[in-house]
Amino acid sequence: MKGTMLYGPGDVRFEELDMPEIVEPTDAIIRVSVTCVCGSDLWPFRGLQPMNGPTPMGHEYCGVVEEVGKDVTSVKPGQFVIGSFATSDNHCPNCTYGYHSSCTQREFITRAQAPYLRVPLADGTLVPTPEMPSEDMMPGLLTTSDVLGTGWYAADAANVKPGVTAVVVGDGAVGLMATLSAKQMGAERIIVMSRNPARQALAREFGATDIVEERGDEGVARILDMTKGIGADSVLECVGTQQSMQQAIRTTRRGGYTSYVGVPHGVELSGQEMFFSHIHLHGGPAPVRKYLPELIKLVLDEVIDPGKVFDLVLPLEQVAEGYKAMDERRAIKALLRP
Amino acid sequence: MKGTMLYGPGDVRFEELDMPEIVEPTDAIIRVSVTCVCGSDLWPFRGLQPMNGPTPMGHEYCGVVEEVGKDVTSVKPGQFVIGSFATSDNHCPNCTYGYHSSCTQREFITRAQAPYLRVPLADGTLVPTPEMPSEDMMPGLLTTSDVLGTGWYAADAANVKPGVTAVVVGDGAVGLMATLSAKQMGAERIIVMSRNPARQALAREFGATDIVEERGDEGVARILDMTKGIGADSVLECVGTQQSMQQAIRTTRRGGYTSYVGVPHGVELSGQEMFFSHIHLHGGPAPVRKYLPELIKLVLDEVIDPGKVFDLVLPLEQVAEGYKAMDERRAIKALLRP
Repeated sequence: MKGTMLYGPGDVRFEELDMPEIVEPTDAIIRVSVTCVCGSDLWPFRGLQPMNGPTPMGHEYCGVVEEVGKDVTSVKPGQFVIGSFATSDNHCPNCTYGYHSSCTQREFITRAQAPYLRVPLADGTLVPTPEMPSEDMMPGLLTTSDVLGTGWYAADAANVKPGVTAVVVGDGAVGLMATLSAKQMGAERIIVMSRNPARQALAREFGATDIVEERGDEGVARILDMTKGIGADSVLECVGTQQSMQQAIRTTRRGGYTSYVGVPHGVELSGQEMFFSHIHLHGGPAPVRKYLPELIKLVLDEVIDPGKVFDLVLPLEQVAEGYKAMDERRAIKALLRP
Repeated sequence: MKGTMLYGPGDVRFEELDMPEIVEPTDAIIRVSVTCVCGSDLWPFRGLQPMNGPTPMGHEYCGVVEEVGKDVTSVKPGQFVIGSFATSDNHCPNCTYGYHSSCTQREFITRAQAPYLRVPLADGTLVPTPEMPSEDMMPGLLTTSDVLGTGWYAADAANVKPGVTAVVVGDGAVGLMATLSAKQMGAERIIVMSRNPARQALAREFGATDIVEERGDEGVARILDMTKGIGADSVLECVGTQQSMQQAIRTTRRGGYTSYVGVPHGVELSGQEMFFSHIHLHGGPAPVRKYLPELIKLVLDEVIDPGKVFDLVLPLEQVAEGYKAMDERRAIKALLRP
C-alpha cells in the first residue's frame, strides 16, 4: 500500500509502505475510511519540532476492522470503529481516573494517513459504532478521534459550565472545536480570538458570541475590558506558544480556569506570575478515549456537526497538498479519503 | 511605640516607630495580643528577595480593637479580632468567588510585629471571636491569620478529600499546617518530606502517616515507589523553590492535583513537562479571609491544635532572635508577645 511519510520540513511524500500486520495478540488492523491532517503535524512540517529521520504520519482515523489479534474481544472484523490518537488499555489506574492518554501502556498512533492501520490495545482503544454509519457521517465521526475530543477536553479542563464566560485562544481546528464544545457545555458567552474572517464565521456558527482580533497585551486588555476588568471564568488555550499561553493566563479571572491542549512549544511559565494569577491550570494530551462514546452519540444523533471543520477534502494521494494548504492557512483542516 | 524593621539581610531592629492612626474611614487600629515571624519574612532576611530600603515587618496578628474609622460597622473597640495578611473588602468579584487575597482593593499587611497595627478595610478583613479568648487559645488563633490558613488552602487547592493519598513537600510551619489540614479533610495517607527529627515528630502528631527523607530525583522515586508507580492524588508544595515545585509535579499522579502556596522564588515551569504530567495546578496567596470563620471555630472548639507549631516564644523586643532562630532552623516558628 501507499502511505504518508514526512522526510523533513515541507517534504511530505506519498509512497510505498509495508502493509500493517498483527504484531501483538491485542492488535487490530483497520481499513481506514477517512483520515486527516492535524495541526500538530504542522510543527515538524514547519521545521519547528526535531525529527528522527523520515517519519510515517497520521493519528486521526476511523474505519472498518479487517482483522484482530487472538486476545481482542470487544471489536470484530466488519465493525466500524473510531479510536484515539493515543492507545489505552482502559483499565490501568490512569485510565480508571479518566486520563487514558496517560495510560501506563500508552503508545502514540502514527501511520494513520494510509489505507490500513495497525491499532495496538484494540479493546481499550477502539470504540465501535452501533451500525455502519452513512457516508455523510464520516467527517463528524472522524473529528471525535482527536480534534473534537481535544476541543472537548479544552472546555472540560477549563471547567466550562452553564452560564460561564469562556475565551478561546486560537482559531485553528482545535480552537473551533473548543468553541463548539463550550457552547454544548452551556457557556453563556464565548469570546473567540481570531483575525481570519472565514474562521470567525465558522466560530460564530459553532457558538462564538464575540470575536476579538487583537493579540498579545492588546488582546488581554480587550478581554479584561469586556469582563469588567475581572477576566473570564474559563480560558481555553488551543495554540501552544508562549504568547498564547500568557494571553490565556492573563485573561482568566482570579480563581478561574485555564486549560491548554496543544503540545507547548518553547513555553516557560513564570512561577511568580502563575502564583499571583490565582488560576487553576489543567491540560495535557486529551483523554479522547474517555469522551468517545459520548461524542460519537452526539454526532450520530446530529446534536452537533463538527465535521464542518473540514473545509478541504482530498484523495489520500494528494496528502502533500493538504499539509501545504493548512500550513499556508488556505484550509482549516484537510480530510483525506484513501 | 517600638516595632520591627528590617534594614537588610540579617539586620532586624526593634526601634521607635510612629503610633499607627486611622487614615481611611474604613480602617481599624488594633492592640496586638500576639504576632509571629513568617517563613516568607526569611526571604528578605536571607537576602534572597530585593528590598526597597528599610521595611517595617510582620503580617500575622490578632488582638483587641482600639479604635475604628467612621465607616466601620462590623467590628468595634474592645472586640478580639483576627485578620488575614491580605486586606479584602469581602464583596468585590474576586472576594465573591472566594479569592479574597486577590481582592480588587487588596493591600498586604506589614508592621504587625509591633504593639499596635492599622488594618485597612477592617469590615472585610477582620473576623471577631464570639468572646475574649483565654490566653492558652492565643497561639492557635494566631495561626489562623496566615500559616494555618495557608496550609489549609494548600490542602483545599490540592483537592484533598476523604481517602486520598497526599504528599506534603516541606516541613516548615506551612508544611506542618498543611499536614494538619490534610488530616482534617480526611486524607487517608499523608506522606511528609522531611529530614529533621523534631519536625518529623510534629508532622506525625499532626497526621503524617509516612515520612520521606530523600529529596530531588531520589525523593520522587521514593514517592512513586510508595504509590505503585502512579503518584499521589494530592501534592501540597509548601516551599517555593524550583526543586520543590519539580518534586511536587513529578510525584502527582496523572489527573491529580498539585497546589503551591509559598511565593515561588526563581521558579520556571516547563510547558512541555507540565503538559505531559497531566496535573491540575492551583495555588497562590491563600484566601485566608474565606477560611477564618471555620478555622477560628475549629481552634476554639479544640478540634485542632495548630498552636503547637510555635516552638519558640519571645517577648516582642527580642524579635531579632526569632528571625535568627528560624533562619538557623533552631525554631520552626517564633511567637512574639508585645
